[in-house]
Amino acid sequence: MEDRKNGSPEEPLILISNDDGIDSEGIAALAGAMGDFGEVYIVAPMDEQSAVGHAITVRDPVRARAWDFTEEAGVAAAWAVSGTPADCVKLAVNQLLPRRPRLVVSGINRGPNTAVNVIYSGTVSAATEASILGIDAAAFSLCEWDGGHYATAARVARRVARRILKKGLPEGVLLNVNVPSRPLDRLAGTRVTRQARARWEESFTARTDPFDEPYYWMAGEFVDLDEGEGTDLGAVEEGYVSVTPLQHDLTAYDHLAGVREWTWEE
Amino acid sequence: MEDRKNGSPEEPLILISNDDGIDSEGIAALAGAMGDFGEVYIVAPMDEQSAVGHAITVRDPVRARAWDFTEEAGVAAAWAVSGTPADCVKLAVNQLLPRRPRLVVSGINRGPNTAVNVIYSGTVSAATEASILGIDAAAFSLCEWDGGHYATAARVARRVARRILKKGLPEGVLLNVNVPSRPLDRLAGTRVTRQARARWEESFTARTDPFDEPYYWMAGEFVDLDEGEGTDLGAVEEGYVSVTPLQHDLTAYDHLAGVREWTWEE
Repeated sequence: MEDRKNGSPEEPLILISNDDGIDSEGIAALAGAMGDFGEVYIVAPMDEQSAVGHAITVRDPVRARAWDFTEEAGVAAAWAVSGTPADCVKLAVNQLLPRRPRLVVSGINRGPNTAVNVIYSGTVSAATEASILGIDAAAFSLCEWDGGHYATAARVARRVARRILKKGLPEGVLLNVNVPSRPLDRLAGTRVTRQARARWEESFTARTDPFDEPYYWMAGEFVDLDEGEGTDLGAVEEGYVSVTPLQHDLTAYDHLAGVREWTWEE
Repeated sequence: MEDRKNGSPEEPLILISNDDGIDSEGIAALAGAMGDFGEVYIVAPMDEQSAVGHAITVRDPVRARAWDFTEEAGVAAAWAVSGTPADCVKLAVNQLLPRRPRLVVSGINRGPNTAVNVIYSGTVSAATEASILGIDAAAFSLCEWDGGHYATAARVARRVARRILKKGLPEGVLLNVNVPSRPLDRLAGTRVTRQARARWEESFTARTDPFDEPYYWMAGEFVDLDEGEGTDLGAVEEGYVSVTPLQHDLTAYDHLAGVREWTWEE
């Protein structure tokens, strides 16, 4: 069952998704970077899906529209999907693709996915969904909101994808890669990091609509709570590519023994 | 700053949220269970938000409508919010509540949140968001889709909340509690567990709309891939309450050293 859709090993299928939408700059850059490695398919949201986290669509049907990506060399086929990044991966693997992917790459995201942003990120969730399905996966983000050096991130994505295709990833592990926005020869190097401890301190702006009903706009300030070494945030601040191995088992193993000693009183 | 909204310690504020929506059976049961412990506020989605994961609303404003929950003893105030469970917690803590909560409880969810469902669960994400904000939190789910013993889950929630209020939780740790649906005296006991390894094997049903465009309904079969001991799934199957400590740091620490040995070739 597991391998029913697998094709020949000499032509690996590479699936690309993202959360910025199928017509974003980052997905074209990523597609260009993967062409040498196998047969490239794109299944991505029709519209921007930032901050959707690991949402999936369970109450409504999803649509998939064939998308003209032929101007990009090496893209076998592309679909725009009316759902979340996790929906895209599920639909691609189970319905749209001719065989099972060897690798799922997500991005290149517009803006960093470091620290607590990993939790909210649709880009990461596409890679997480692939990992849950037992497929090697990596998410790529460019640490710049406007413009930025997508060519640099694409080159980094090539190196990471090459390594994964050659050696594979441990089961249940995906890679979250954040790339400083600068020319390739200005990167300080690569660091394998942990997710920094941080939070958003929200401030909501309250308004009143013409019908006297209140509504709220969320804004927030990012607060780095981490003073330790080895974080994703610290790496990109110092000009390094940050590679963080992530897992989708959320168990706090270090605390199992402690909680087992608790007593539960009425 | 951290404690600017804190009230007196002798009257802790308890925030309740969920993903089934503010008029669900589970939230009323949970509110009834928390009344003795402090001042209870409810901030929950207007509509069902199942499977939204950790989505937040960043492009649109959210609305909060005062909700009449006065028939429930001990509820100080309630709001229905036009957003996700994570939105509810952010808006509550930063805008709606008179002071910072001592505890956030989410649920009681209709249906289990075990294994990989933790990733998709809006119920868990409300508790996760609270934990990110530095507030003790727990998510409660009843392992039954139709009807079921909410009174049992409410009693379990009381025990767990009492323990958290007395001793607190380690920083960055929240509790995910799954309760078998049976009379209280038929529970086998409580087990502290890890998240089981599992996935959904999706099967999409393809249809064609009246305009000849395809669309897809997602259905899935839950596949338990875990043959080990000590899982959340195993506990509830044997009639035990499952208590899983979760973390929102997704770093795969066991694999940091291994990935640091990689080389990155062009």
